[in-house]
Amino acid sequence: MQDKAESAEERLIARYFRPLATHPGAFGLGDDAAALTPPAGCDVVLTTDGVIAGVHFFADDPPETIGRKALRMNLSDLAAKGARPIGFLLAVALPSGTDEAWLAAFAQGLGEDAARYGCPLLGGDTDRTPGPTSVSIAAFGAVPHGKMVRRSTAKVGDCVVVTGTIGDAALGVKLRRDRGLARRWQLTDAMADHLEQRYLLPQPRNALAEAVLQHAAAAMDVSDGLAGDLAKLCRASSISAAIDVSRVPLSDAARAAIAAAPELIETVLTGGDDYEIILTLAPEKLAAFRAAAKAVGIAVTEIGNVQAGEGARFIQDGKALTFARPSYSHF
Amino acid sequence: MQDKAESAEERLIARYFRPLATHPGAFGLGDDAAALTPPAGCDVVLTTDGVIAGVHFFADDPPETIGRKALRMNLSDLAAKGARPIGFLLAVALPSGTDEAWLAAFAQGLGEDAARYGCPLLGGDTDRTPGPTSVSIAAFGAVPHGKMVRRSTAKVGDCVVVTGTIGDAALGVKLRRDRGLARRWQLTDAMADHLEQRYLLPQPRNALAEAVLQHAAAAMDVSDGLAGDLAKLCRASSISAAIDVSRVPLSDAARAAIAAAPELIETVLTGGDDYEIILTLAPEKLAAFRAAAKAVGIAVTEIGNVQAGEGARFIQDGKALTFARPSYSHF
Repeated sequence: MQDKAESAEERLIARYFRPLATHPGAFGLGDDAAALTPPAGCDVVLTTDGVIAGVHFFADDPPETIGRKALRMNLSDLAAKGARPIGFLLAVALPSGTDEAWLAAFAQGLGEDAARYGCPLLGGDTDRTPGPTSVSIAAFGAVPHGKMVRRSTAKVGDCVVVTGTIGDAALGVKLRRDRGLARRWQLTDAMADHLEQRYLLPQPRNALAEAVLQHAAAAMDVSDGLAGDLAKLCRASSISAAIDVSRVPLSDAARAAIAAAPELIETVLTGGDDYEIILTLAPEKLAAFRAAAKAVGIAVTEIGNVQAGEGARFIQDGKALTFARPSYSHF
Repeated sequence: MQDKAESAEERLIARYFRPLATHPGAFGLGDDAAALTPPAGCDVVLTTDGVIAGVHFFADDPPETIGRKALRMNLSDLAAKGARPIGFLLAVALPSGTDEAWLAAFAQGLGEDAARYGCPLLGGDTDRTPGPTSVSIAAFGAVPHGKMVRRSTAKVGDCVVVTGTIGDAALGVKLRRDRGLARRWQLTDAMADHLEQRYLLPQPRNALAEAVLQHAAAAMDVSDGLAGDLAKLCRASSISAAIDVSRVPLSDAARAAIAAAPELIETVLTGGDDYEIILTLAPEKLAAFRAAAKAVGIAVTEIGNVQAGEGARFIQDGKALTFARPSYSHF
């Protein structure tokens, strides 16, 4: 569209974002709003999360990763709720120095993930800002009516299970700030790269959403640190959880770093940006859940169990760990 | 909730934002996501819009108006699409100097409008930012399946109708920057206040949404200026529109300003922030639409008609006006 009556903003949207708007209800980004016909018998699950340069990512991170990170943070919430992605709205604020090459790479990365996760762009809002680059996403998914997996429904006697590995991104951001730590932590280059990559680009567990929906009693996404997020689940469910720290799944890199600097266990358990799923389920469902996870190639680890009482206890060598700051908080 | 295991962020959300989360699917903001059961036979209409301090509002604007403005910008999109509000997601980024009094006033204003427009908070994301205060909202509405009123469905022979008055906010922001203009424009204090208020707090036409749904052939929200937005509607519908400038509805204040400074007609027609609805409808529907608008107390004015061709022409004294910049554009 080279209609010269179009504004620069319209041309920019048409060039970089319209290709991502593959959902028919997005109307090619050519209307005030999108229209979504929810799948029959389904609820729409809604979540919003975003990233700001200097807070959630580094201003010089590769632009193709920035939109992907923002989208994946939201996809992780959908996965934890047992929801299948439908699409997303994008609000992006760009400083005046942002050039078209940055925007092209940003949109390309975002488009790759939109296609990969079956989560097309539905609409957006593009602004100039005197502040840092900011990307806010609202994402939508579908679950059978009334079946969204909640935080508040854990039961005494449930197993506590977590996906993937914990703490990589929290270590990765420390390395991103000071790569010299890799030597102190006795990491190989490959290990240090792995941790940084886990910070740069989360791996949301959407392939596991159907199994979460089928088997979980309660679930949430681990984004603010395992300790703090599990404490939230315990409060929501009015239960307690006892976690065996030795069973918390760690990558080889995280394990090596903790061997060299044992105090990093607190960073691992509280640092956040994991984008894994913590869930509870009845013990008799564990085998079926494990099989479903294996079928989609996602590691799941039983790390403890749900008890009466309150609070999440992380037990190491017979003692409950205490944390200076159990959860990431912006305030 | 004074559980000391809660983070400061959780306490802040509980205190200021949970009271706005009156929708049952918001789960009191206590989960990763909200769940929405769409009304039977309805599509969900989705839109996103936001405000940034120094771009869309002044950092020292009354905090109780800032969230309201952001919400009303989105409500205006829903109204123009014929959609009934369901709820909204809120992403807010706050500089470190933001105090609790600011936040309390912000949330109170937002809550008043959430109640007034029947559009409760469904969920959110609260971050610190090194940049300016930023509020991004994604809002959701309901329309009967397949009935969202589009931009692309105007027909040759339709009347062009606009709600309310045009140009007030564009004049208001000039006054907000330089109140001395009020004297040059020969405005009374009440007139100048009216224009500034129209900038500070849009009056979205949600009460008219049902009539738009019933009668409009095509519609959109006027946010980037009447001239540019009507040109977008013309492009989307592959039609032309001829507008009689003398019929464009103006407030007494705008009329007085233009009388004193005739060049302001360009500001009025292109400045934006109107949050009125521009729509087209078949001439035989005009009387019923007028009656429906009168019943809800919203002024509607026929300003022109749809013709074959392309482009929106604004005709004054027999000549088509040309504009330096027909539409607000961030880029």
